[in-house]
Amino acid sequence: MHALYVAGGHVLRPDGTIVEGDVLVDRDAGRIDAVGSDIAVPADAETLDAAGGLVIPGLVNAHTHVAMTLLRGYADDKPLDAWLQEDVWPVEAELEPADVAAGARLGVAEMIRSGTTAFADMYFEMDQVADVVAESGMRARLGHGAITVGKDADAAHADFETALAFAREYDGAADGRISTMLTPHSLTTVDETYYREYVPQAREAGIPVHVHANETTDEVEPIVSESGQRPLAYADDLDVLAPDSFLAHCVHVDAGEIDLLAERGTAAVHCPASNMKLASGMAPVQAMLDAGVTVGLGTDGAASNNDLDMFDELRDAAMLGKLAADDASAVDAQAAVEMATVGGAAAIGIDSGRIEPGANADLAVVDLEVPHLTPRHDLVSHLAYAARGSDVRHTVCDGELLMRDREVLTVDVDAARAAAQERATALVERAA
Amino acid sequence: MHALYVAGGHVLRPDGTIVEGDVLVDRDAGRIDAVGSDIAVPADAETLDAAGGLVIPGLVNAHTHVAMTLLRGYADDKPLDAWLQEDVWPVEAELEPADVAAGARLGVAEMIRSGTTAFADMYFEMDQVADVVAESGMRARLGHGAITVGKDADAAHADFETALAFAREYDGAADGRISTMLTPHSLTTVDETYYREYVPQAREAGIPVHVHANETTDEVEPIVSESGQRPLAYADDLDVLAPDSFLAHCVHVDAGEIDLLAERGTAAVHCPASNMKLASGMAPVQAMLDAGVTVGLGTDGAASNNDLDMFDELRDAAMLGKLAADDASAVDAQAAVEMATVGGAAAIGIDSGRIEPGANADLAVVDLEVPHLTPRHDLVSHLAYAARGSDVRHTVCDGELLMRDREVLTVDVDAARAAAQERATALVERAA
Repeated sequence: MHALYVAGGHVLRPDGTIVEGDVLVDRDAGRIDAVGSDIAVPADAETLDAAGGLVIPGLVNAHTHVAMTLLRGYADDKPLDAWLQEDVWPVEAELEPADVAAGARLGVAEMIRSGTTAFADMYFEMDQVADVVAESGMRARLGHGAITVGKDADAAHADFETALAFAREYDGAADGRISTMLTPHSLTTVDETYYREYVPQAREAGIPVHVHANETTDEVEPIVSESGQRPLAYADDLDVLAPDSFLAHCVHVDAGEIDLLAERGTAAVHCPASNMKLASGMAPVQAMLDAGVTVGLGTDGAASNNDLDMFDELRDAAMLGKLAADDASAVDAQAAVEMATVGGAAAIGIDSGRIEPGANADLAVVDLEVPHLTPRHDLVSHLAYAARGSDVRHTVCDGELLMRDREVLTVDVDAARAAAQERATALVERAA
Repeated sequence: MHALYVAGGHVLRPDGTIVEGDVLVDRDAGRIDAVGSDIAVPADAETLDAAGGLVIPGLVNAHTHVAMTLLRGYADDKPLDAWLQEDVWPVEAELEPADVAAGARLGVAEMIRSGTTAFADMYFEMDQVADVVAESGMRARLGHGAITVGKDADAAHADFETALAFAREYDGAADGRISTMLTPHSLTTVDETYYREYVPQAREAGIPVHVHANETTDEVEPIVSESGQRPLAYADDLDVLAPDSFLAHCVHVDAGEIDLLAERGTAAVHCPASNMKLASGMAPVQAMLDAGVTVGLGTDGAASNNDLDMFDELRDAAMLGKLAADDASAVDAQAAVEMATVGGAAAIGIDSGRIEPGANADLAVVDLEVPHLTPRHDLVSHLAYAARGSDVRHTVCDGELLMRDREVLTVDVDAARAAAQERATALVERAA
């Protein structure tokens, strides 16, 4: 066995306990082989020093638009609708494939540096994103975001055909690290007709569906007034809700919609930072967890966050979940950590998010020997409330090292930064 | 002139503009001497390399309990009242002076590492905190937190006499880097009598008053029902509201109370992370700013945050302020940065928080050459939404280097971590 031996640290187990121990990774299979303190280690295993560190599952960013790193800080302090129409969409209309590649490479570098090993991405020019994922060693579920509002039928169909063709072509790419999804942009920006035409085709091909849903009240009201149903009942009518579907945001969901998610086995992806920054509202996360809904966490795009650091998202989820529930015991540290790991993995349909034999060998090692993670009363609390992306020392995905001792190995970070700056400057000039 | 030359970076000016330029510091005076791109630099000036960095005012943590780092992660996911009574107070009853010193030293290390140069601290055994401030080179306003509920008159008087004696003795200590304050714990935990007896004495001695106010609805209701007044009207009655007073939290303040703060010139210190974590509520920050209230930011203690990183607080303030106002344009990036710098400095009464000739030479240099601060559309946005404490490369207070190239120079960080761990473990065992 071609092995990686993550040695000398503490390990976060799936039940939330922390043990002193090591992790043996089978690199050929890309899976965790053993966890414990008396593992038989192959003589030729490569050792990764985790002394003074905590081995955690690689974090799962279950909803993002990674290439939007190019627009980080381009327009802030505006509500969703104005921000999209006045700032984001005009610039996105000028996007070239090389922009998407540059933004994706920057975002991937940022995610690897902060311990994220997998993400779900909905955007344009997704073959560019797929190439970056392939070269970076990360894991991702990718979909071309299809929009039909403001388009004639030919253009709308063409957009969905692009989405479907991408999903079919890239599913299983990069030795299986890339999977795909059909991603109608949202319940309001895609006409009913196209849901009815394309969702069945995705189902038939075994491709999950991922949609923005119930993000703002502005998105809820038109559906209620036009269809007479709550948005998720409408989505159910369109066959969007299925066990492999996952919905981004779910901020304004009522009790009936939460029950519907639970019944259908459809996951929600909570994006607390984006929801705060756009003043969209507070998702009822504890209520969703109580109902048995699978909840993952996402950063959303860097333009509405403004970073891709899942430790921020974890902390925001725990914090905001308490305010939303008006209960300081809601969304506790363990729940937040689960959403960022096993919850997100379940939402996007990958066998990651837990340090356990058989699971994908996607993990990160967090350096505990810093003032802000001292003293060690409770390391799960530290993960939720005090750790940050910069505490990540090593990142491993599919059994391979993506970052070692804070040096990213699969992306040339300086080159990625320079290219992103150059493309962003030119992009904004074109759009002006 | 004994000078420090901060060279080759960008500089955040008080009006929110960013210029390429250098900063010359007069170390004898502890003041900024010049800012610009054609400064006459003394031949013997020490140069601090700021290339690729942004020079910002040292951040001001305007409300904390720094020694509570010892309880970081000790008890989470509980509302304020239960958390204090079941967890915090029983442990604090066992606090020894050496515990406070160890916790303060850990917290000071954390603050220096994350670009904070000044803080306001209310706690016990404050001579220990003062000693740590003196040795660390930081700037602080310190007060012994006096509580009278549950005490007989002798004990209550003794507590206030301790508070007053500390405030008188230490004001101006550490070459003026230490100033003091009278800190009755809160409007509900200190009986009216003691406000009426001691606030005038503080005023006479020129010592500001700092109090927890309107943090939770549980604190508001008893005052309303007993005094028939809103808490800040009651505080005004007690002569607590003055131009040099500052109130922590101000979550549940109504329009009349906001006007009262503005009229009296009393500052509010917003603690968004703590308010979220304890589910206390959302302070109407934009409304306070609109009314002309001076607003600073504080981390509160590390036990309810759980870190002392003011970049988190800055971001939380901008994020939560939008939700509180139901308006994504509220508490914009510039407002958040101002609260963390000049607003906090004004709140706690120090001449810091701006990079300008004549101001205290309290500054930090943020490393911009990282993926999450790329591209550079707007550096003020980056400070508010994407930067974190770990991006700070150098920290300077009163003209002296506290951290250079991420190495803390005035605190032995490893020793501080070890001592804090040892004291925290023993403290919790004593309290068990």
